Amino acid sequence: MSISITPIGIIETPFDDLKGMPIQPSGADKIQGTIIIDKEYEEGLSDLEGFSHIILLYHFHKSKGYNLMVKPFMDDQQRGLFSTRAPRRPNPIGLSIVRLIKIEGKRVTIEGIDVLNGTPLIDIKPYVPRFDIKDVTAVGWLENRQEQVASSKSDGRFILGQQQD
Amino acid sequence: MSISITPIGIIETPFDDLKGMPIQPSGADKIQGTIIIDKEYEEGLSDLEGFSHIILLYHFHKSKGYNLMVKPFMDDQQRGLFSTRAPRRPNPIGLSIVRLIKIEGKRVTIEGIDVLNGTPLIDIKPYVPRFDIKDVTAVGWLENRQEQVASSKSDGRFILGQQQD
Repeated sequence: MSISITPIGIIETPFDDLKGMPIQPSGADKIQGTIIIDKEYEEGLSDLEGFSHIILLYHFHKSKGYNLMVKPFMDDQQRGLFSTRAPRRPNPIGLSIVRLIKIEGKRVTIEGIDVLNGTPLIDIKPYVPRFDIKDVTAVGWLENRQEQVASSKSDGRFILGQQQD
Repeated sequence: MSISITPIGIIETPFDDLKGMPIQPSGADKIQGTIIIDKEYEEGLSDLEGFSHIILLYHFHKSKGYNLMVKPFMDDQQRGLFSTRAPRRPNPIGLSIVRLIKIEGKRVTIEGIDVLNGTPLIDIKPYVPRFDIKDVTAVGWLENRQEQVASSKSDGRFILGQQQD
């Protein structure tokens, strides 16, 4: 049984190709982008501006296929796909939490964005500490690698766990 | 242009209907559930057990249609859909961050789950503080309502922003 998803808008960013793109929003803290939401959904943006952060779900539209074991960026071992944020997944949906700067009509300015220019947007949700901030006690194979990831850029071959073939 | 999504497994929970279901995982801190991942994806669970928390994306399979303005649970005003976590959305994909208890083959035991029994799972991602924990300064209309939400249960008519028709 498959589910049909239709993008609700597009994300504009300075990144026209994978080369030099930050690995995740935390490595793109000051990078601004703009969501252009389709006119028919504009009313749904009401009340969103009160939130400092929002969750974006989007389509990894340049990803094709997937492998269940992948060699993450800056790791030296194969890891299970679901323990990575690799774009090549059975369902290539990405998740980024970004700072909301302003909303003008159907244009939403965001900061800390790490996706390719033209990425199809699937959903926007408010980021709510009570639901979304957890008391983490273990980060698996990323232990000691979090700060590294934050300051890294894609070299065009790898991006957060994914070999770009 | 639409995207076709195929579930990778199913989430088993104690909640067979919306009545009495917690509003979000934070209101279901001790509730355990089990992900049964399809056999063909089992290898992708490798290395995941090292993480204390995981992000689940799933299909709000009981949701039909949507409204761009909704009256959230325990709020007295209509709010823009994208400022809520309502299940009835243009793309009815839900997001929950849960505690990972254990993995046995294709069975993943989780804690703090708030979805209906039989919910189709779309993706699992590791929860990584460096990407996913943000320094929130504003929560919009949820201001002063976060603790309330945490201790509330659905009455079968409303669930986090959505009127269940």
